Amino acid sequence: MIIPRDPHFTADQLAEVQAIVHEFGCTITPIPGQTRSVYAIKGDERHELMINRLEGLSYVSKVETIQSPYKLMDMKSGLAGHRIQIGGKTLAQELFVCAGQCTIDPKNPAFFIETAHAVKEAGADVIRGGVWKPRTSPHAYQGSSEAIHILMRAREETGLPVNTEVMDEDQLRIALDAGVDMIQVGARNALNYSLLKKIGELTRESGTPVLLKRGMHMGPIDEFICAAEYIVANGNPNVMFCPRGTLPNLDGYRNHPDESITPLLKQKSWAPVVVDPSHSVGRAIYVPHAALSAVSYGADGLVIESHVDAKKGIGDDPKQAIHPDVLANLIADAREIYSRARRYSQAYLAQPATV
Amino acid sequence: MIIPRDPHFTADQLAEVQAIVHEFGCTITPIPGQTRSVYAIKGDERHELMINRLEGLSYVSKVETIQSPYKLMDMKSGLAGHRIQIGGKTLAQELFVCAGQCTIDPKNPAFFIETAHAVKEAGADVIRGGVWKPRTSPHAYQGSSEAIHILMRAREETGLPVNTEVMDEDQLRIALDAGVDMIQVGARNALNYSLLKKIGELTRESGTPVLLKRGMHMGPIDEFICAAEYIVANGNPNVMFCPRGTLPNLDGYRNHPDESITPLLKQKSWAPVVVDPSHSVGRAIYVPHAALSAVSYGADGLVIESHVDAKKGIGDDPKQAIHPDVLANLIADAREIYSRARRYSQAYLAQPATV
Amino acid sequence: MIIPRDPHFTADQLAEVQAIVHEFGCTITPIPGQTRSVYAIKGDERHELMINRLEGLSYVSKVETIQSPYKLMDMKSGLAGHRIQIGGKTLAQELFVCAGQCTIDPKNPAFFIETAHAVKEAGADVIRGGVWKPRTSPHAYQGSSEAIHILMRAREETGLPVNTEVMDEDQLRIALDAGVDMIQVGARNALNYSLLKKIGELTRESGTPVLLKRGMHMGPIDEFICAAEYIVANGNPNVMFCPRGTLPNLDGYRNHPDESITPLLKQKSWAPVVVDPSHSVGRAIYVPHAALSAVSYGADGLVIESHVDAKKGIGDDPKQAIHPDVLANLIADAREIYSRARRYSQAYLAQPATV
Amino acid sequence: MIIPRDPHFTADQLAEVQAIVHEFGCTITPIPGQTRSVYAIKGDERHELMINRLEGLSYVSKVETIQSPYKLMDMKSGLAGHRIQIGGKTLAQELFVCAGQCTIDPKNPAFFIETAHAVKEAGADVIRGGVWKPRTSPHAYQGSSEAIHILMRAREETGLPVNTEVMDEDQLRIALDAGVDMIQVGARNALNYSLLKKIGELTRESGTPVLLKRGMHMGPIDEFICAAEYIVANGNPNVMFCPRGTLPNLDGYRNHPDESITPLLKQKSWAPVVVDPSHSVGRAIYVPHAALSAVSYGADGLVIESHVDAKKGIGDDPKQAIHPDVLANLIADAREIYSRARRYSQAYLAQPATV
Repeated sequence: MIIPRDPHFTADQLAEVQAIVHEFGCTITPIPGQTRSVYAIKGDERHELMINRLEGLSYVSKVETIQSPYKLMDMKSGLAGHRIQIGGKTLAQELFVCAGQCTIDPKNPAFFIETAHAVKEAGADVIRGGVWKPRTSPHAYQGSSEAIHILMRAREETGLPVNTEVMDEDQLRIALDAGVDMIQVGARNALNYSLLKKIGELTRESGTPVLLKRGMHMGPIDEFICAAEYIVANGNPNVMFCPRGTLPNLDGYRNHPDESITPLLKQKSWAPVVVDPSHSVGRAIYVPHAALSAVSYGADGLVIESHVDAKKGIGDDPKQAIHPDVLANLIADAREIYSRARRYSQAYLAQPATV
Repeated sequence: MIIPRDPHFTADQLAEVQAIVHEFGCTITPIPGQTRSVYAIKGDERHELMINRLEGLSYVSKVETIQSPYKLMDMKSGLAGHRIQIGGKTLAQELFVCAGQCTIDPKNPAFFIETAHAVKEAGADVIRGGVWKPRTSPHAYQGSSEAIHILMRAREETGLPVNTEVMDEDQLRIALDAGVDMIQVGARNALNYSLLKKIGELTRESGTPVLLKRGMHMGPIDEFICAAEYIVANGNPNVMFCPRGTLPNLDGYRNHPDESITPLLKQKSWAPVVVDPSHSVGRAIYVPHAALSAVSYGADGLVIESHVDAKKGIGDDPKQAIHPDVLANLIADAREIYSRARRYSQAYLAQPATV
Repeated sequence: MIIPRDPHFTADQLAEVQAIVHEFGCTITPIPGQTRSVYAIKGDERHELMINRLEGLSYVSKVETIQSPYKLMDMKSGLAGHRIQIGGKTLAQELFVCAGQCTIDPKNPAFFIETAHAVKEAGADVIRGGVWKPRTSPHAYQGSSEAIHILMRAREETGLPVNTEVMDEDQLRIALDAGVDMIQVGARNALNYSLLKKIGELTRESGTPVLLKRGMHMGPIDEFICAAEYIVANGNPNVMFCPRGTLPNLDGYRNHPDESITPLLKQKSWAPVVVDPSHSVGRAIYVPHAALSAVSYGADGLVIESHVDAKKGIGDDPKQAIHPDVLANLIADAREIYSRARRYSQAYLAQPATV
Repeated sequence: MIIPRDPHFTADQLAEVQAIVHEFGCTITPIPGQTRSVYAIKGDERHELMINRLEGLSYVSKVETIQSPYKLMDMKSGLAGHRIQIGGKTLAQELFVCAGQCTIDPKNPAFFIETAHAVKEAGADVIRGGVWKPRTSPHAYQGSSEAIHILMRAREETGLPVNTEVMDEDQLRIALDAGVDMIQVGARNALNYSLLKKIGELTRESGTPVLLKRGMHMGPIDEFICAAEYIVANGNPNVMFCPRGTLPNLDGYRNHPDESITPLLKQKSWAPVVVDPSHSVGRAIYVPHAALSAVSYGADGLVIESHVDAKKGIGDDPKQAIHPDVLANLIADAREIYSRARRYSQAYLAQPATV
């Protein structure tokens, strides 16, 4: 849809506009209105260059597109009925929970192992543990590849799948080689397209599920879905959206809680939504509220930081991690709300066709 | 706390700083740090003019205050144990629900009366109905004083208290004279201090409860609490905070859902929090999610737009109002979550002293 | 333009949609696209209620309007060539400057008189002085009606027009009765429609110019223009837009500088843009940068806080006011940039027709 | 500075707090205030883990740090007098301009060569040309390594240094091997710490200047400075800050213009600020305004998209690129404002010591 600056295009302007869209295999239909006209583009209107050329014309006010800029992630794509399985659980059928420490302390491996057992006990489906950590300051602890062994030991002892974040190709290869069951892309790398492509390529065969965090400064929802499209388009359809709070944090939390985006994501894309309340609010005391809110909005799962002795943790754990006992109660409450909230989604969520 | 631009003040700078704070009855304590000093202000540091004078000094980086800028609304004020009663219900003890139409259609009074009965049936404690409406365009329907009679008739028929929004002194007097039980200040007037003062003055004797909506563009939480302080300081302590979504609406709702602010408000002030999910998300299909989220965050109540035949409504009702049948289910679900969520608040909410 | 949730409306859906738009005197034209259709609304698409009814339909994704929601402020309105005169100066032809104290100190009237003479000397066209002050805290100094006499004395002594802010009808009447030449609506009242209407009504005959500040939390530009429409539609076309910084203040200023909105305002409306750099950045040292930026973006004027001895000022002056000597240099620099920047506006600003 | 939730810590609480800070080599000084105490931390308060542990305590409201989280980028670091040279020009002494196409079209190399000559003629110091392009959609043109040869040919023909953006290690190595004179990190990778480290390492010897764009969703200024610290801490001090607009784009530009951040950056760090007005406003017609605004705020340089025949360009050029003729005028105007604006910076910018 092209909106002219003046009420109507002149004949010359229309000719120039038509010449541009023809180059991209599209045509123009004028829609004369009472006081002004708009001009519909027929054909594939998603050509970024075509839009840029049209908006480059001084007599064009703006170009609005109706089609989504992604294809595979769309509700209309053939992947719409795709279901992700982790451990024995099928996402989007019952509440999924990934829990564990923000950061594995290589000097105190016992903590992580103890936490792993405790979160399993509390009802978690997957154990999370940070091996490498993106830190605002280059002078802070950046994680250590050695911690991967502690992560894998927890997997072996508990029998649960494990999840960790990777920030570059080297870390990705180490994690996949070690046998990590689920990969996490952090908020800071949510638009690192080179990494997203590489993840898609290197997990093409394994189909390792990927939790894609929302950029902590990310605004438009389509940008988030397009980032997921990079992974899927490169070979791995097992991607999950993870809202985790955005900036600016107007109200006083670590981030601005954004679990409310869940229904909007689910109307646009088939991928499950697994919310991270821990980074969203950023303090253990608020985490249960944010977790219950996430399932109130229809989230399919939760990824929560938990630690058996948070005060002795490293990374964000002393501030954010809840105790596994709290986690156990929280999971019970969340399951209750999960069922209640889902009934309200049926009002607007058509069932996507099964592939 | 004064933070100098350079690591430390010179003797001359310190003397000038001290002279300013002395004028306001305060003193300065230097706190020498490893690489830089800060300077604590002792005394009442809330003098806005003192802060402005200090920040006007070129060698001062900024002044940070610890004390809250409000007094009566503070958790430490004598009002901390104050409880508001509406109808037979005491706020903050069980879930409070105010429901009804966005706008009373003076041409179709039967709708409003029917809605009033239906929301009572669904479990609402107070009936809301818009008599006057703030509209973005001066050419849109602005409400009508005649609708006040329809509102009062609903009150008479149902026996429930009624609530309406006022935008200026004239409307306030009409509403109070008619016997409205609860007054609402809309988002656009949240910082209209002349109106807030007038409400405080004119309800001093009646103690009519006032629902103060959060400004739709409002950021800092203290600004919200200070607005409530205007009402209380002018004579009426029966004020409720109403988060209703803020702008920018980054994700695609009418506003950015902000019920997550509830725990932060409750840690700072004793006044109950009654969330408006209808304006927050702005479409009926999303309202139940936002309502459940509000109680997940510990809200004391909900104000929800409901209409027996929303398609025929005026104002926002066709878009936002849920049917009373949905409302009934929603209230049941909300009560369930209300109890569960409250258990998590006890971790951080000290019981304020009873007056 | 109606965008369906599914690719196309069914026949039943289309019939319901058509029934709604017919009620408002509009018609529907389907625009079948390659993969999905949109549906153009012909007729006056600005009916807020029609839009709400359409968006209330579960199978409608959203409704986008092309027409602006305002009429009189539009570039196409008959007012497009309207020119505002203050003192001897015609706005939008040469740089307009309003300068003076944030707040008149009734205990120290000599400061204000001295400042008035100094800003006249520096080249200001109008003297500003705050008589009443909106303050975040009800416990802070709220201004005093007595200061109006000091303001008028400055007018008498200097021969320059004077400007002050009003917050309610009482203050408005006092200011107009005293003979104030220019009225200012502050950011907190930018959406106080009752006040805007009253200003339009009470200045209908005098045509007193009104400086309308942008709401400090205001987002969408159309909301700002509609607020001005309230004044003009009630009788006074002499309105000026005043960007003054918005929230959130992400970077560290008092507000987020927003003088960049100037070209967008000037493309949509004929009213002059007079930027307030003082409240935008909030500290005297940054004010010159923000003022030069405003004229770089094509602003028609500046309203600047200035004080002969800011350290002894009250209100925001100690922090924000620049010295009249700095003002004199700044006006010279701003005039130079004003001419240079205007050449770049000609690329996109069509000359509005003279009435 | 530790702020307790209650007015004062109990003896037990203080003991626990002290135990934590002692672990990190710090001590606590209580600062008893009139109504509440705060507790100053003496020692290096930047330990992220210490802060997390303190904020993890339920009786701590928050911890505020005075020290900046970066070291090398600080105005007090030994690098404060460091000056960057590109071509024959020393940054921060006279206006620096980098101009050229957004994207080099490998099918039409003549355009880029012609543009290169034209921007040299217009007064640019460095030629920019995009070889690889981050694109929101994985289905859009992603650039091509072949274009590097066209870039280097422009360098050879014009004798000017050249600049291009890299998104991963592979591209970085190709660019450095080809002899690119200046490297650009795009907004999407502004927090890609693995890439920033790698750039620091691989340019340690060459000292190739790096233009670090501000993340398009980036909020807090310290996060931006810390990102630069990653490059400098890994070996290359030749880093420049590049504000280029942030999101949300509230007003209607491509991004929210953020050149106003310049004085705040220059007060905190010694690195030059080179603003990109093209991505900020996103349309050629507004670019001159934003460029003049940048120098009004004291920017040291500009990076501007320019193209000899923008309509035939690819990438953002049809929409954003200004013609070299406009660029020539703009550079002349910018130089004039540059000198005028700098006089106002002297009020608050102390001269950093020369190394």
